[in-house]
Formats: sequence, structure tokens, C-alpha cells
Amino acid sequence: MWPTPPVNRLHPPSPKIIRRLTEIVGPANALTDPALQVAYLKEWRDLYTGKSPLVLRPGTTDEVSRILEIANEAGIGVVPQAGNTGLVGGQIPSEAGGEIVVSVERLKHIRSIDSAGTSMIVEAGLTLSEAQAAADARGRLFPLSMASEGSCRIGGNLATNAGGVAVLAYGNTRALTLGLEVVLPDGRVWDNLKTLEKDNTGYDLRDLFIGSEGTLGIITAAALRLFPKPREKETALAALPSLAAALDLLHLAKEHAGLELTAFEFMNQLSLDMVVRHVKDARLPFGKPHPWYALLEISSLSDDGHAARVLERLLAEATEKRLVSDGTIAGSLTQARELWRLRESISEAQKPEGGSIKHDVSVPVPAIPEFIRRADVTVQKICPGARPVPFGHLGDGNVHYNVSQPLTMEKPRFLALWEPMSRAVHDVVSDLSGSISAEHGIGRLKRGELARLKSPVELDLMRRIKSSLDPNGIMNPGKVL
Amino acid sequence: MWPTPPVNRLHPPSPKIIRRLTEIVGPANALTDPALQVAYLKEWRDLYTGKSPLVLRPGTTDEVSRILEIANEAGIGVVPQAGNTGLVGGQIPSEAGGEIVVSVERLKHIRSIDSAGTSMIVEAGLTLSEAQAAADARGRLFPLSMASEGSCRIGGNLATNAGGVAVLAYGNTRALTLGLEVVLPDGRVWDNLKTLEKDNTGYDLRDLFIGSEGTLGIITAAALRLFPKPREKETALAALPSLAAALDLLHLAKEHAGLELTAFEFMNQLSLDMVVRHVKDARLPFGKPHPWYALLEISSLSDDGHAARVLERLLAEATEKRLVSDGTIAGSLTQARELWRLRESISEAQKPEGGSIKHDVSVPVPAIPEFIRRADVTVQKICPGARPVPFGHLGDGNVHYNVSQPLTMEKPRFLALWEPMSRAVHDVVSDLSGSISAEHGIGRLKRGELARLKSPVELDLMRRIKSSLDPNGIMNPGKVL
Repeated sequence: MWPTPPVNRLHPPSPKIIRRLTEIVGPANALTDPALQVAYLKEWRDLYTGKSPLVLRPGTTDEVSRILEIANEAGIGVVPQAGNTGLVGGQIPSEAGGEIVVSVERLKHIRSIDSAGTSMIVEAGLTLSEAQAAADARGRLFPLSMASEGSCRIGGNLATNAGGVAVLAYGNTRALTLGLEVVLPDGRVWDNLKTLEKDNTGYDLRDLFIGSEGTLGIITAAALRLFPKPREKETALAALPSLAAALDLLHLAKEHAGLELTAFEFMNQLSLDMVVRHVKDARLPFGKPHPWYALLEISSLSDDGHAARVLERLLAEATEKRLVSDGTIAGSLTQARELWRLRESISEAQKPEGGSIKHDVSVPVPAIPEFIRRADVTVQKICPGARPVPFGHLGDGNVHYNVSQPLTMEKPRFLALWEPMSRAVHDVVSDLSGSISAEHGIGRLKRGELARLKSPVELDLMRRIKSSLDPNGIMNPGKVL
Repeated sequence: MWPTPPVNRLHPPSPKIIRRLTEIVGPANALTDPALQVAYLKEWRDLYTGKSPLVLRPGTTDEVSRILEIANEAGIGVVPQAGNTGLVGGQIPSEAGGEIVVSVERLKHIRSIDSAGTSMIVEAGLTLSEAQAAADARGRLFPLSMASEGSCRIGGNLATNAGGVAVLAYGNTRALTLGLEVVLPDGRVWDNLKTLEKDNTGYDLRDLFIGSEGTLGIITAAALRLFPKPREKETALAALPSLAAALDLLHLAKEHAGLELTAFEFMNQLSLDMVVRHVKDARLPFGKPHPWYALLEISSLSDDGHAARVLERLLAEATEKRLVSDGTIAGSLTQARELWRLRESISEAQKPEGGSIKHDVSVPVPAIPEFIRRADVTVQKICPGARPVPFGHLGDGNVHYNVSQPLTMEKPRFLALWEPMSRAVHDVVSDLSGSISAEHGIGRLKRGELARLKSPVELDLMRRIKSSLDPNGIMNPGKVL
């Protein structure tokens, strides 16, 4: 077996090294005061709080390069950070306090948008909203979209291969990326900022860095794909008799709309009960409750009513086949927003219901009903009365299998079940050839589960690659592998 | 710098090793007779003819595994082969005669198609046509399509990340692949036959093996994405005043049709002159010649005339903007096939015109006119009177920049210019941040050019990965790197 990178040989930077690193970025961007560091060391859900002798905010790729060259020579652990919105702790340094943090937040240039508007080259510190706005100002669409888009940054989206709500039609971050600029662990810069749709010249290094969670280098810029903006969008909420009907409806929707099906989200009645209970002005547009719901969106580049015709034909056929018990089509943008709000408020509505144990998993799409059935049984065994709130991106096979605590239980007692419950749910996922991290990554949170559930062959391949690209093991130590 | 894999430490198999390898697959599938080997050693355009002590045709993944375990221990070079249709010599063993060939052609099982028809798991020896047919029989579309589809095999498509005519809407082979089964150089099997749309658990090994041209392992099976079949297809040939107009038309077509634009091919007048001269019954559907032509195809999942409406609106706007000088819309499937035949006959029609020096390159789409202008000048300097026949997948930025010899020159004298002409054309490509291999790969043909034009940083990264995954350097020696 290939050796694990020598994490134990890392050590904190000496005062001299701290001075050299500070000179590179200037004192204003080399934070040693814990009060100033706190925004970089605390994870937003309070799952992790790290310690660091030095938080650096380089302003150019060259500065990143000089930082890594020194860190690599001196054997200092480096934790790359972008928007600090990650959900698995990948962006937080260890509590031991020896690792430096390199934030890309000051790399904010939009370097170019090509004349036809088919791609743009942006730096890693742009927030996702800023990247979307840059495309929009050019009359184009950068489709990556998720709840954290106002704070998360492109570098983090790339490092985690972020998903979000537009994956069904446009793919995840990987599918939206044409090229990268990466500072390697030894400080060399790999300039691959190409805007080519086709390039078969050697190994696919781009996709290796995307999703590697800062363990192989620091992504400083990317060439991203842009798309035409849809001229029409139709949104509907369908009430469904069963999860099997949801799958059949998804399949039918793909047959009718193909890649014009830009969203297919699902949720159960309990999810919407919670939303109606806790979210201001939220109301269910149906007279009576139903076991399951699907939120559909169909987008078209035409402006002749094509999207509406496709949606109507789809819902007519679905009703005839008894896949849909009831349904409502948004008659205005405001109504569409209200339907989306039901879906997007689920996480928020879970909070007043007590503790919640969350899983971001995927299984093959046809296996979703079996997954939920088995996971529900598993969860009841571990915690009788626990209330599963599964929802998510049905079209991608991605279930946010969240579990709210029993009404009468104390929150800490419930949350103490996180590890056994997660392991049990992950076992079901694994048994169905699924993934224990559909879109959030591994970071620290799932590192143990990765080691437990990945095949030894795959772990060995990953370790070989890690050792060959980061022989001193300085990049994001203790994450992923 | 990382060391190059130790190719020079390889040696031919001893008689004892040949016996052991023969036992694995049985004598009927272990070819030592040169007469029986010839189909595996000769490249179809006669650019390369290799020598080999042993051609093996394993029938299972386990047999492939046992072969590689022995080869790795004994230090024997292994050349993986699928359909032997590759265009860069990657599938042919060296003339030195020490490498064994492992053909995957007997791995022919369709292992599964999921109940919703969204994916299928097939073995590497299936021809592309057979894979298409398997999807079709299930009422679904596997969109990968190219001229060699009757002979090329899935394993080769994956190893080269093959492109073809449907990339614009569906992507290349990489984009169509969900999971792989790979036999590693030491014989271990990496089982990653997942059918997940989303999986963020560690490094993207799948995309590393795809396109690695057999230098990192042997792909034995793959999970492939399937799509709904379009219900309507509209095809048009547009005559264009300039290449700039072709670009504007492409952009307009994407605005109108998005991913329903399933083809946008371009060609010049000389290309079609040759087709009309040499291909039986071929005729140009316009009264007079035009400098450039575009072949467009718009597909729709609807069957209410949507594709026709989109095409009509597009051509109306294009005519109004003077992007199109003339145009014809196919009124029947037969007419559509005739239009496609014009495009697909170009390579064939070049043959009676003498020698042809070919380049499979890509540049950023907006740079295509500049590329062709500069390449034309370059070519004239090297060979006055040479006749460029550029055509290809404009929508992907992929130009097949073929150059026919001057009418009066002797063919061998012209073909002797291959290397200087290619180097000069590649220099233009490189200067425009393009790729010297858009879809065919590197193999042997472009290995020198890769070493000349790739950055030292990128070459070093690739060599590190090669050394870490294939430390004995047995996999496809002398290819790519």
C-alpha cells in the first residue's frame, strides 16, 4: 500500500516564517489577532472552531504561489478557504493550531468574458452571486445556484464541486467549468485557463482538482461556461399519491421536457406541515394533505408559450395515468416564488421543531423509494418517534434525508445519536450503491465514513494521487483522506 | 522533476510467461501466429504496423485482471485495444515487438439497464452501434455517434474520450459516463460502476481514467447515461457570406434553440466542390456557390411542430440580419440524409484529390475565423498551392483542418511536408490557446507535439500521476507521455 502523506511531519510556522509570509501579503492581510481571525476559524453552524497562527489574504495568484512555496519548504499545513460556507468542515483549520489559513476572498477580478458570451474567466474570490451578476450583465446565464450564493465563493464551489438547484439541466460545478488556474502545493502555477469545449491532450487534471477540497492545491481562477437565458419559465406544484408516482412523474417529465426540465424537487407532507407552521404567510395551495409533493420547473428559450404547452401536456398525461392527485400551476412570477419558497423554507422550518440530524446522500434515481423506506425503518430502530423529513433534488437522485427529533425528546439527547444514526443511514446508502456525499463533499465530517465505506482499492488510488501531487502533505491536512 | 516511468526496464515475455498468459484465456484467444495477429497490429490507415509476441483476447474482467497482475510482476508492456479504429496510433504496439496486446473485444455483455431507462452498464467490447442499439431497444437514446460507430468499441471511446457529431447537445464520452470498472496496472479491479448523477466522495478518478488512452489501466465496463429520444428533428443547410456570419448564426441558433441545437457543422465551398465531383448523386442544393456553409439540426422532444417553428424563426431572423445568403430546409428524412451526406462525404471526397495532411484541432469558438485565416497563410508558405479543406463541429470549436495537396504536386512530396506543416498549424493553435487534439487523443502520433507544446508544469503533473498509478510503466508504453 502507498503511504499516507506525512501529516505528522508538519509543524507550526516559526516567527521568522510568519514574518516572511506577512511580507508577501502586507500586514493588513496577515491576521494574527484572534478577534480578527474569528470569521475564518468558525464554521457557521458551530460544528467546528479551529485555531491558527496566521490567516493570510493574498491579493494575487503570484502571492498565493509565494505563500505555498514557503509553506511547502517549511512543512507547514495550509487550509484554503473561500466563502467559509462549507457544510463538512473542509475549510476550517484543526484545533491543534499549527495550520495557516489562505483565504482567496481578495481574488475578485473578472478577467474576461468572450465576445460571444459563451464563457468567462473569473477569480476564485468572487461570490457566486457576483459571478451570476457578471454573466447577467452580459445578457447570459451562469446557472449554478444554491441557498448560500450570496456568501459562497467560486473557489469553494470548485473545490467542492458544488451542486444546488440547477444540476438537473445544467450539471454541477464540474460540468460548468472549462479550465482552471491552480497554485500547486510547491508554489508552481498550473495555467489551464482554456475556454475550449473539446481538448483531448492528456490526463484530465481539471476534473481532478475540481472536488478535491483543497487537498491538492489552491484554485485561484476558472473559465466558466455561460448559457442563454430562458425566455419562459413555468412552475407547478403537484400533489402525489406515492413516492413511486413521483418517480414515474419525473420520468414522464424528462420524456416531455428533456433538458428544459430545469427543476424537479420533492418533499413529503411533514416537510410542508413544518413550513406552514413556522414560516410567515406560507400556505399549502391544496384543500387537503397528500403524502408527497413535487415542484417542477420547465424553461424554454422560445417565447411563444412552448414551456406552458409542454407543462400542460405533461400534467394532462400524468393526471390520466393517476400519477398526480392534485396540482397547481403558478399563474405569475409571484406565485412561482411562493411555490419555491415552500421548498426552500424546509431547513429553516425544521429549526423550531428541535434537533435535526442531516444526511446529504444520493442513490440511483429508481432506488429512491426503497432508500427512504429502509432508512425510515432504520431511523425508528435507533430513535423511536424520530421524524424523517426527506426532501431534495429527486431528478439527481439526491435526497436531503434530514431527521427531526421526536417531539418530546431533549435536543442534546437526540443529537448524541448523530453518529450511530448516520452510520446506519450510510449503510443503507452503501447497500444501494449510493453516495454518502451527493453534493457537500467529505471535509472532516465524513472522513471517517469515507474510510469505512470506500473500497480499499479506491482509497489507495486517492492516496497515491495525493502523495504524488502533494508529497509533503501540506494541503488541507486531515481532510478527505 | 518527477522521473519518467521506467519504460526501458520493460522486456518481452519469456516462453514461460507466454504459457501462463495463454492458460488464462485459452489457446484460441492467445494469438502468436502473425497471420492471425495482423488485424490487431495494423492501423487502418497504414500509419503504424506493430509487432507483438502475444495478442490476448480475455473474456472476463477477471481474466484481464490476472493478465495484468502477471505482466506487472514480470515488467511486460501491455497495449490495450478495443475496436482498433483510433486515429493516433494509441492502440498499436511498438515495432520493437516486446509488448503484448490485450483486446477487450470479447467483453460483450450488456450487464444491466435500469428500470427507468436512465442508464445502462455495458462491457468495453461492445461496438458503439451495439450500445446504441441496446438503448434504442429500450426506447432510449445513447447519443454518442461518429463515422466509425460500426467498428469502434465502448472501451476505446472511453479511453480516448471520443467526440463525434452529437457533442454540441450531449457532450463527449466523458459527459455520457456515470461510472467505470477498471483493471489497474497491478491487476486489482476498481469497481466504480455507479449510476449516480451526483457523488462528491473524494477525487474524480473516473474522469482521470477516461481519456487516459490505456496508459493508466484497462477499462472493462462502464455505466452510461441514456436520454429520451427526440420526437422531431429539423435539418437545414445554410449558405453563408463569411465565416464571421457562421459564428453569428451559431450564436443566434444557441439563443433560439439552446440544447435543442443538436448539430452545427461547417464547411467551405472547396469541400463541397470535392464532394459534388467525386461522390455519386451528390449535388449542391443552391444555384450558385457560396464561401461557407452550415448544416444545422434542431431536435425536440415535443411532437407539435416545435422544432420546425424554432428553425423557421431562427432562419427568418438570420436572413433579416444578412447572416444567411441562401438556405434549404429538409422536407423529408431522405432530404435530411442527403444534406448530412454532403458533410459526411468530405473526407472520402478528398481521397481522389491526392494527399491530405490532417489536423484535429480546437480553438475557442470566437477565434475560429482568425485560426483559419492564419493557418491558411501558414500553409501557403510551407506549400504554395496547397488547398485547405477546413470543416467540422463549429459549435464545439473543433476544426478538422485538412489540407489537400496542390493539383500538380506528387503525393509523396506533399506528404513529406506533414511534420513541418503540422508543427506550423499547431503553433497557430497554441498561440490562440487552442488544443492540438480536440477529439482524437495523443497516442503516438502527437506525443512529440504534446511534449513540445504543453507546459512543463502540466507534463510534470501528468508524469507524477502516471508514475503513482503505474509505477512499473507497463501500461501502453510510449503513448501520450
